[in-house]
Amino acid sequence: MKKIEGGVTAAKGYKAAGIYAGIKKKRKDMALVYSTVPAKGAGTFTTNVVKAAPVKWDMKITKKSPYVQAVVLNSGVANACTGEEGETNNLLMAQATADALDISVDAVYTASTGVIGKQLPIDIIKEGVKLLAEDMKEDIDHGTLAAEAIMTTDTYSKECAVRFMVGGKEVIIGGMAKGSGMIHPNMATMLGVVTTDLAISKELLQEALSEDVKHTFNMISVDRDTSTNDSLLLLANGLAGNDEIKEKNEDYKAFCEALNYVTTDLSKKMAADGEGATKLLEVQVIGAKIKDDAILISKSIITSNLVKTAVFGNDANWGRILCAMGYAGVDFDPDIVDLYIESIDGKLKLVENGMATNYSEETATRILSAKEVKACADLKMGTESATAWGCDFSYDYVKINADYRS
Amino acid sequence: MKKIEGGVTAAKGYKAAGIYAGIKKKRKDMALVYSTVPAKGAGTFTTNVVKAAPVKWDMKITKKSPYVQAVVLNSGVANACTGEEGETNNLLMAQATADALDISVDAVYTASTGVIGKQLPIDIIKEGVKLLAEDMKEDIDHGTLAAEAIMTTDTYSKECAVRFMVGGKEVIIGGMAKGSGMIHPNMATMLGVVTTDLAISKELLQEALSEDVKHTFNMISVDRDTSTNDSLLLLANGLAGNDEIKEKNEDYKAFCEALNYVTTDLSKKMAADGEGATKLLEVQVIGAKIKDDAILISKSIITSNLVKTAVFGNDANWGRILCAMGYAGVDFDPDIVDLYIESIDGKLKLVENGMATNYSEETATRILSAKEVKACADLKMGTESATAWGCDFSYDYVKINADYRS
Repeated sequence: MKKIEGGVTAAKGYKAAGIYAGIKKKRKDMALVYSTVPAKGAGTFTTNVVKAAPVKWDMKITKKSPYVQAVVLNSGVANACTGEEGETNNLLMAQATADALDISVDAVYTASTGVIGKQLPIDIIKEGVKLLAEDMKEDIDHGTLAAEAIMTTDTYSKECAVRFMVGGKEVIIGGMAKGSGMIHPNMATMLGVVTTDLAISKELLQEALSEDVKHTFNMISVDRDTSTNDSLLLLANGLAGNDEIKEKNEDYKAFCEALNYVTTDLSKKMAADGEGATKLLEVQVIGAKIKDDAILISKSIITSNLVKTAVFGNDANWGRILCAMGYAGVDFDPDIVDLYIESIDGKLKLVENGMATNYSEETATRILSAKEVKACADLKMGTESATAWGCDFSYDYVKINADYRS
Repeated sequence: MKKIEGGVTAAKGYKAAGIYAGIKKKRKDMALVYSTVPAKGAGTFTTNVVKAAPVKWDMKITKKSPYVQAVVLNSGVANACTGEEGETNNLLMAQATADALDISVDAVYTASTGVIGKQLPIDIIKEGVKLLAEDMKEDIDHGTLAAEAIMTTDTYSKECAVRFMVGGKEVIIGGMAKGSGMIHPNMATMLGVVTTDLAISKELLQEALSEDVKHTFNMISVDRDTSTNDSLLLLANGLAGNDEIKEKNEDYKAFCEALNYVTTDLSKKMAADGEGATKLLEVQVIGAKIKDDAILISKSIITSNLVKTAVFGNDANWGRILCAMGYAGVDFDPDIVDLYIESIDGKLKLVENGMATNYSEETATRILSAKEVKACADLKMGTESATAWGCDFSYDYVKINADYRS
């Protein structure tokens, strides 16, 4: 497997576009990803009871459509809490895309991000779809344009692609995502589109994605607020020419590994670019009895406001980390826990068997001052582990989310 | 039932003291509550797996001791994550108190709040206990001194007392509490002591407390970080002279009602004085099918960073409230939800049947600018309800928890 340039247009047979349609004031606000041939589609979606219209639509498409061919996305308006009118607008957006591309409406995924409670400006959307269809191209730059068009308070666009071999054929996976940002009054948040030219059955494609997100996108948190619009879509169009993967063989494992590389990369970029974030925080929990324990504890640490503010202050506040571990809902022995911090500036053991080591606060502060900081907790109870990614908690988080009007 | 002045010394037969022992730099740091006669003791404690030494001790006392007679408390050091040495120090603190008061060590509750991972300065504690025993008095002012001595980043002390009648006898319940604050690097957090002169069986006293906290202290949140030291202790010494309550009769109900008044008052004061808070946020969920649904949803709203920053910004960001309801883990129909906000400046319906009403943003901002703000969500699915209390999320929260060194 090798990391390559590009995003959603990296794999064979995918075109993309990202344009300014007029939903937002100045920045690009609509994107399209198109497969030149029908592709298998898989998706994972928000668990929030309050689901945006595009999420409801995509869940139906994922379940019922044997093939999909396009993903149309907009930023600026989330189309959530918009009632029947919102569902109608979503359908009109999908239909306009189908018409522009001359495909079935059941082959169109939709995704929206932006303000909750506002209706889509459907005439602008319809015009935007036409522009997208005219503008879409296969080159890498057009993938980047699409990645840029779905940004909200993201400070940079997020793409990743890798190349790997399946049965002697070169296969590519590429993706784009947007992170937790809400320059607008209400959240809408995470969207991701991953494309591949792999040939694989729809069932295994979905299974690979569902399993993958447990360890990637579901392991990041900026502010614990699970949005109404979270969607991750995966398209596989088979143009790599490999024999279709129909069972969990070595090829399937190679695909899962490559998919994991792309989604991990996008997840980490999303965490590092969380609202107001000044650094990426990676938390690893090792020595757990079962994997779920490691997952729960690492997520509990990564979401603690007290841990996040301490990391912002470059403060080795290990008591807050142990405290967050303690309320994770997992049974472990706090009296045998070891805790380390690590960055490019070094590694330091802060806690041994539940109590402070004789560490230097200055060294700890130097380590925590890096742009990427790791914490590792060893439960010493087994061999399972998990990694979660988050970011620190700064004044700017409050500023972005309280002062948006000023 | 009537609200009266005072706190832990309001009921008959309780003495208290609050002094500067030398654990903290300048402020009072040790407190004592003493019952002149043996009292029944009840307690509820943190669910955190990482439990401070005093919490472990108090859980044992609550279970095994038929009577208790004193609560000794210190601020400045939490005695959490301190290993065997911490447990020994806690025992020495209890023993010193028992010696000074000439009571059994099994009749002494301990409570600590402050820095995690630091050992108690046991010599200072021992001297402090002597001073406390000499200084304790029955008057209201000495109750206040005790309430002040357990403060950390609290900006004011928290007391409440009520008088009510049981079988023709006047009974008093009074209490003190400290809130979520950590001027020190690590959290330790909530402590509460409630005293009453009621005569009641130990079993019913514990049951009343355990049931009560579900609707009071367990319904507040400042930052979702469940501490290692949370303790609420309740002493009942029987000096009111009522016939001992041994069953869930009208007297028991009167007691529960009065207890609820005191604990609700203390809980609200704690939420309003959360770190960096500029206002109290009360969230009521009505129309739930079952009570637990209302509890989960109201707590989900009260703990959302996005809701809290919006309230800080006086912004009627109802989408964030619906979003937080949606990820509470409760099944409800978002398309029929109504949502109101209310304060002394008026009441406004923001959402009807899941969609925005045509409300005035200016009116909404005016309502949210008050010092106490209420939000009420009606699920329209049943008759159960719950209320939770929290506070807004300001720059000062980040400042207190990131910049404590400066």
